[in-house]
Amino acid sequence: MLSKKIQAALAGSSAIRAMFVEGKELAAKVGAENVFDFSLGNPATPAPERLKQAMKDLLDTEDPLVLHGYMSNSGYEDVRETIAENLNRRFGTSFGWKNIVMTVGAAGGMNTVFKAILDPGDEVIVFAPFFGEYRSYAANFDASIVAVGPDYETFEPDLAAFRAAFTDKTKAVIINTPNNPTGVIYSDETMKKIAEILLGMEEAFKKDIYLISDEPYRELVYDGAKENFLTQYYHNTIVGYSFSKSLSLPGERIGYIAVPDTAADAENLLAGIEVANRTLGFVNAPSLVQKAVAACIDETTNLEFYDKNRRTLYEGLTGLGFTCVKPQGAFYLWLKSPVSDEADFVAAAKKYNLILVKGSAFGCGGYVRLAYCIPHEKIVRSLEAFAKLAAEYHLGA
Amino acid sequence: MLSKKIQAALAGSSAIRAMFVEGKELAAKVGAENVFDFSLGNPATPAPERLKQAMKDLLDTEDPLVLHGYMSNSGYEDVRETIAENLNRRFGTSFGWKNIVMTVGAAGGMNTVFKAILDPGDEVIVFAPFFGEYRSYAANFDASIVAVGPDYETFEPDLAAFRAAFTDKTKAVIINTPNNPTGVIYSDETMKKIAEILLGMEEAFKKDIYLISDEPYRELVYDGAKENFLTQYYHNTIVGYSFSKSLSLPGERIGYIAVPDTAADAENLLAGIEVANRTLGFVNAPSLVQKAVAACIDETTNLEFYDKNRRTLYEGLTGLGFTCVKPQGAFYLWLKSPVSDEADFVAAAKKYNLILVKGSAFGCGGYVRLAYCIPHEKIVRSLEAFAKLAAEYHLGA
Repeated sequence: MLSKKIQAALAGSSAIRAMFVEGKELAAKVGAENVFDFSLGNPATPAPERLKQAMKDLLDTEDPLVLHGYMSNSGYEDVRETIAENLNRRFGTSFGWKNIVMTVGAAGGMNTVFKAILDPGDEVIVFAPFFGEYRSYAANFDASIVAVGPDYETFEPDLAAFRAAFTDKTKAVIINTPNNPTGVIYSDETMKKIAEILLGMEEAFKKDIYLISDEPYRELVYDGAKENFLTQYYHNTIVGYSFSKSLSLPGERIGYIAVPDTAADAENLLAGIEVANRTLGFVNAPSLVQKAVAACIDETTNLEFYDKNRRTLYEGLTGLGFTCVKPQGAFYLWLKSPVSDEADFVAAAKKYNLILVKGSAFGCGGYVRLAYCIPHEKIVRSLEAFAKLAAEYHLGA
Repeated sequence: MLSKKIQAALAGSSAIRAMFVEGKELAAKVGAENVFDFSLGNPATPAPERLKQAMKDLLDTEDPLVLHGYMSNSGYEDVRETIAENLNRRFGTSFGWKNIVMTVGAAGGMNTVFKAILDPGDEVIVFAPFFGEYRSYAANFDASIVAVGPDYETFEPDLAAFRAAFTDKTKAVIINTPNNPTGVIYSDETMKKIAEILLGMEEAFKKDIYLISDEPYRELVYDGAKENFLTQYYHNTIVGYSFSKSLSLPGERIGYIAVPDTAADAENLLAGIEVANRTLGFVNAPSLVQKAVAACIDETTNLEFYDKNRRTLYEGLTGLGFTCVKPQGAFYLWLKSPVSDEADFVAAAKKYNLILVKGSAFGCGGYVRLAYCIPHEKIVRSLEAFAKLAAEYHLGA
């Protein structure tokens, strides 16, 4: 009785969620303290104290009919204005509130944008490895994902392959930097080349092509790397954002879409995203938390917490002989499997209570992802387990 | 550059939202206090005081990593258990937490159910007049709505027409009682006949057919009518619920889907709804408000507030000579347009600052909907404006 699409989805459901469930099962068996669960990108440092106070203040002072009531499907105008001004101040953009649509997280935002622009048969280019859910989001609108492989040295996009991936069905390109799952930040030079290629393809195919920048990790950058905002490179850039990581609110489902006036058909696109927000059933982003994030717009997450994990894990794993991409941002580490089929490696790791996610879930086999958003002491203790795993593969020997 | 579906949606966008916008524009011109805006089903009585306290307590006592963090895509197990127990206590059902999926409002829930069961070309039967968004939700999955007309005396479904509407493409039937837009509650007898017809059609077409009960107004019943829960009539019933109306939280986007064990393929259906929740981009219902509604599960809305509006409006309008269906539930009044094209009547009403929604938006021309969830003094003052409108049409003369 299930739809064909959902039957297929159930058969090949999220590898990340599957490992999360395996981790919980293992925890029930051996005790949560003995499981090193690197599966899920669930922030491990709490929401800022300011957020709690902001919510309590809103509950005490705002009219509940406004605070919990319907507003425009695109969100409260004052919240959108606050976000626009924050972006303008930080990135030199010139957004007004009309350029911002509040969304049910970045996942909700991405779906509203896809609904607004994708026709059946359209193609969306993504850079592998990539967040596997993009595939489901495109499939929701009968569009397909065209994956472009990485440069395996840097895990930046292979630009020759990118150039070759365009067809007359290409409607958009998704970019995600700092990247999930590699932790790589694409360089300024790479971004300029991507923009150049996009402009050339718009010319060649005589059509508009959107660059959709999925930026949930925008502020999670290390070693003094700058926070980046991608509308500066290419006129036709739509930005999707989530407060899940920066304010540790993944369960609250709050984010936004920013469409600059320079984007093709910007006004209609914003109207289309608003309608899509309604007709897809989101209706609007949750109301109280809209106002709460606006009140916390200048708050930042505990970057030091993740950075300490990053350094301990990267140094520990490379010291054990594992080959890793050094993370520059986000809270993921991308590790080369010692054997070609990384599913075997994931299974071996589980024997030592290490829960990893296979790279093929991100369109890039032979690697695994570690989400290091877990308590630091677990990172430290996990290295003993990784040492046994390394020994099994005769690494560093 | 917009998708064809969204271009079409923009052209024929929600009549309800359009009138809401017209009402706001009129308010800017003549002052909000002079506009009688009956367009939107936005609760006018505030969320219970208990909800505010529950949210503050949760913020003070719960670990923020849990309160704002990811949980299962179907929601917190303790919240689902609380809802299951509440339903079992009130309606004699036998739900466990696994039968409940927390959703981003009823709109989000309806879309996850549709995603889980509808294939392109499938048909969903609805009883006109009906909430127009059902059409968009079905279109999201390339399925179509088959509208069955009402008995124009009672505004219960025309059961002969219902029986004739089934084809081998019928996958589901939507039912909504207390009804938006009529305020009618389908009688016990009608429900039994609907169930009987459904059982016959399952037999005739040798397939499972789901009854999807959209119950946001379940608790908004007057004159001592009983609260109803529709799984009792037909084994294959899926219930969608929203706390928007009962707890005055429409902006927070919180509801649930209940699938009884008796439903066809129940276990897979629940798994499919969970996956759909994720892949459509909802991911999960907002976390803090999940826990807040569980803490307020025994709270009720200020029914007296709506009932007073209902009586004043119904008596006032019939006294002026208008023909109305007497509302038994929800907070809508269904009024017969004095002229066949109710768009003309809506335009005439606007001259007196009365904002109504045309019945054709609900698949039933010749009528208009009034959402009487506005302050009582506005109801009283609106009757002066309605008197002028009645005079224009020589009613009661």
